[in-house]
Amino acid sequence: MILGRVIGTVVSTRKDDELEGLKFLVVKACDFDGKPTGAAVVAADSVGAGIGEVVLYASGSSARQTHLTKDRPVDATIMAIVDVVEVDGESRYVKDA
Amino acid sequence: MILGRVIGTVVSTRKDDELEGLKFLVVKACDFDGKPTGAAVVAADSVGAGIGEVVLYASGSSARQTHLTKDRPVDATIMAIVDVVEVDGESRYVKDA
Amino acid sequence: MILGRVIGTVVSTRKDDELEGLKFLVVKACDFDGKPTGAAVVAADSVGAGIGEVVLYASGSSARQTHLTKDRPVDATIMAIVDVVEVDGESRYVKDA
Amino acid sequence: MILGRVIGTVVSTRKDDELEGLKFLVVKACDFDGKPTGAAVVAADSVGAGIGEVVLYASGSSARQTHLTKDRPVDATIMAIVDVVEVDGESRYVKDA
Amino acid sequence: MILGRVIGTVVSTRKDDELEGLKFLVVKACDFDGKPTGAAVVAADSVGAGIGEVVLYASGSSARQTHLTKDRPVDATIMAIVDVVEVDGESRYVKDA
Repeated sequence: MILGRVIGTVVSTRKDDELEGLKFLVVKACDFDGKPTGAAVVAADSVGAGIGEVVLYASGSSARQTHLTKDRPVDATIMAIVDVVEVDGESRYVKDA
Repeated sequence: MILGRVIGTVVSTRKDDELEGLKFLVVKACDFDGKPTGAAVVAADSVGAGIGEVVLYASGSSARQTHLTKDRPVDATIMAIVDVVEVDGESRYVKDA
Repeated sequence: MILGRVIGTVVSTRKDDELEGLKFLVVKACDFDGKPTGAAVVAADSVGAGIGEVVLYASGSSARQTHLTKDRPVDATIMAIVDVVEVDGESRYVKDA
Repeated sequence: MILGRVIGTVVSTRKDDELEGLKFLVVKACDFDGKPTGAAVVAADSVGAGIGEVVLYASGSSARQTHLTKDRPVDATIMAIVDVVEVDGESRYVKDA
Repeated sequence: MILGRVIGTVVSTRKDDELEGLKFLVVKACDFDGKPTGAAVVAADSVGAGIGEVVLYASGSSARQTHLTKDRPVDATIMAIVDVVEVDGESRYVKDA
């Protein structure tokens, strides 16, 4: 999985039927501190993530293993909202309470 | 999924039988403003996308989950036409009405 | 899918049984004009492609969806021979008749 | 598979139900000597790996073939702890006994 | 598939049960002459490849389609030992008899 920060949304009305009801978020890969520094992808949201949150997203067929995305044509899905990233014994990112 | 702009077509008469009837479009990855800046792929079209439109495409096995591409040897499929891309609270791309 | 030009062959006698009878071609990713400029992969051939032809190849599990490659351990398969690549309204590549 | 060194953990309370009970570790791709030099991913742990250990992780659908990760939305899983890496006839990495 | 040269081995005693009996080899992507120049991966061996041999390996779910790797958590498998690589009409690599 990749750590990313949710920075936006994509709206689409003309799409494959299987996508009905899914929310698409723009996620930018981020470093351990939650700073968005990497590539951007558009991911389906399976956990109600909000703008600004640090999340984990899964790619490929694994992106279709959540309840919301089963058998749907999506190749990236946010499957967890991150509370803490600890690296080398140090808390690098902690979600605001 | 990746944001891309449709910039062309690929025509093929000699191909695997499973591809009959599919349309192949050249899609170039684009930034949030819809400007094509990234790598080009050839994607099957499942939504009737036209030249110049900003779209989302899915890769890998997820590209085979639309009605049109089920069980076919395609690894990239346009599954949505983009209306709006909003990033950091700003509408970066809005499809012409 | 990726546009590529067939530039060579790979011969192997000691291989997994499931590969018996498959032909392996060296394909180099090419630009819209058919000029090989990108990375090289070795792809199974499902359409009788010849050296020098511009083709489309699919990667990953999609490479196993042709009649010839079903359930075989190949992750790249040529599934179409390209006749025309048209980009920005211009025919960039046209196969010799 | 990729050689990596476990350098941290990611904690998440709000996540897809299918992820319950899985441990997420931060793994940085490493060279043959076990020095972390490459990209970082977050991987599910199927072998009880600890911080500092050199491991192998599998990506994509293969990450879902362990007992712990079957059918779960994870695209990277640590499936082995490395004892020895031998390259060009030389032991480059040996796990402390 | 990718052309690679086998340059080493990885030994692991603590691993997922499904990996029992598999041999892991370090493979470095090589050019058409068999010179290792690219990225290194650790691949399962399904053909009895030896150190120094030029091989083809498949990645992703295709790596699980050999008899030895079926349903196992491996994402790269050597499925062929290369005898000849011919590019642009020239034999670039020929395996020693």
